[in-house]
Amino acid sequence: MAQRYVRVKSQEGTIYYGLLQLSFNVEVLDAPPWLDGQPSDLILEPDKYQILAPCSPSKIVGVGKNYADHAAEMGTSVPAEPLIFFKPPTSVIASEREIKYPPQSQRVDYEGELALVIGERTCDCTPEEAQTKIWGYTIANDVTARDLQKKDAQWTRAKSFDTFCPLGPWIVRELNPGARLQTFLNDDPHPVQSACIDQMVFSPDFLVSYISQVMTLLPGDVVLTGTPFGVGPLNLGDLVRVEIEGIGRLENSVITR
Amino acid sequence: MAQRYVRVKSQEGTIYYGLLQLSFNVEVLDAPPWLDGQPSDLILEPDKYQILAPCSPSKIVGVGKNYADHAAEMGTSVPAEPLIFFKPPTSVIASEREIKYPPQSQRVDYEGELALVIGERTCDCTPEEAQTKIWGYTIANDVTARDLQKKDAQWTRAKSFDTFCPLGPWIVRELNPGARLQTFLNDDPHPVQSACIDQMVFSPDFLVSYISQVMTLLPGDVVLTGTPFGVGPLNLGDLVRVEIEGIGRLENSVITR
Repeated sequence: MAQRYVRVKSQEGTIYYGLLQLSFNVEVLDAPPWLDGQPSDLILEPDKYQILAPCSPSKIVGVGKNYADHAAEMGTSVPAEPLIFFKPPTSVIASEREIKYPPQSQRVDYEGELALVIGERTCDCTPEEAQTKIWGYTIANDVTARDLQKKDAQWTRAKSFDTFCPLGPWIVRELNPGARLQTFLNDDPHPVQSACIDQMVFSPDFLVSYISQVMTLLPGDVVLTGTPFGVGPLNLGDLVRVEIEGIGRLENSVITR
Repeated sequence: MAQRYVRVKSQEGTIYYGLLQLSFNVEVLDAPPWLDGQPSDLILEPDKYQILAPCSPSKIVGVGKNYADHAAEMGTSVPAEPLIFFKPPTSVIASEREIKYPPQSQRVDYEGELALVIGERTCDCTPEEAQTKIWGYTIANDVTARDLQKKDAQWTRAKSFDTFCPLGPWIVRELNPGARLQTFLNDDPHPVQSACIDQMVFSPDFLVSYISQVMTLLPGDVVLTGTPFGVGPLNLGDLVRVEIEGIGRLENSVITR
């Protein structure tokens, strides 16, 4: 199994980066792994930590309509260039934490996505250079208040509520380009979303290059690569699970805000 | 003169919050003033520091079309609710630093604005409570690539280039509600923008309340309150100056990226 990089909070409230062992012990690193964090002597046993989102991004850059069949289901076509938007750092939650359904919306959708974690300061890089800037891969749910997205025209409010960016549960460094992304609701064994990552319109390398020509990306920043066909509503009490082969599963339930 | 709260970098590269004295010495604080920073023994003389943007926001939330005459000049009307967007932290520059004109745009506009600096963690607050959450006031230039704003429909790329958020030069704690905002280009004594802050559609208190019902605002976060009538293009070599009575002047020149 690939090495799994986690971020955890100890019982004392200290936040650590670490390696998740098969025993579910966490081998603590002395810095974020993309800043060359090395194993320390500290090991946290499974009942001694709480898992957090695997990084603490200064920016989360989302990309709209990056799968053709999703663009079609939204009644639009694929854009000629990536269409970018932000989610704020305050929207991030870990796996197994609750998505809070806000009272302003009557239609909140899941959007399962591959997330890229940036490893170093990146400005004006080419797609070829971008490969070395992507430190690893994790899973995201780009939760979106669909009614507010349509009403506002700007997507900011719809995508920025607290808890609207489940992220994790961990980061892996390598990903099979043909890995499958699937989203599941509750106990239904049939996925509501199922697509291969290589069906993206703009590749991870292209996206990082494109974004870096607008804004400098910093270590730990996150790029969300878009959602495939099959978005749909979440309801109070739902459990939504996004899986990507070779990474794992990101699982969150829905409660009232 | 009101107390002026600054953020500076010393010759040794250390970043400090401080009070700007009339002599232009900086009396260093031991923490950000909104986190109860107290004067230390350290005084920096004018040639011993470089002025930075006066805070380091985790989020910059902008508000579109918040002056009726500006909404009209953009060919639209005032929205029924505030229309929010983000600028990334990497877009922030201090007064007297250069705005970099990106090659992707042929039309980059200035937008002079009043900026609010949040003093404490703020979630789901009422307009009445918001007053106590606004720690102070500074000046911003919401630089916008107008052609890309129209082309993309989403405003994110147009407003997010590195250097597109001049902020400063300092923060004051009190502001006359009728204070005038003016924007000047080069040596022209006639302002290109001139409006009183109280002509805003949604007040600072209302904006902070509205935003806090979507996302938690953190100490040092910034809310841009919208630009009045008179937006227009910047050209390479231009010097743009935004002034607000009772705060000061934010001045930046335009160079190529």
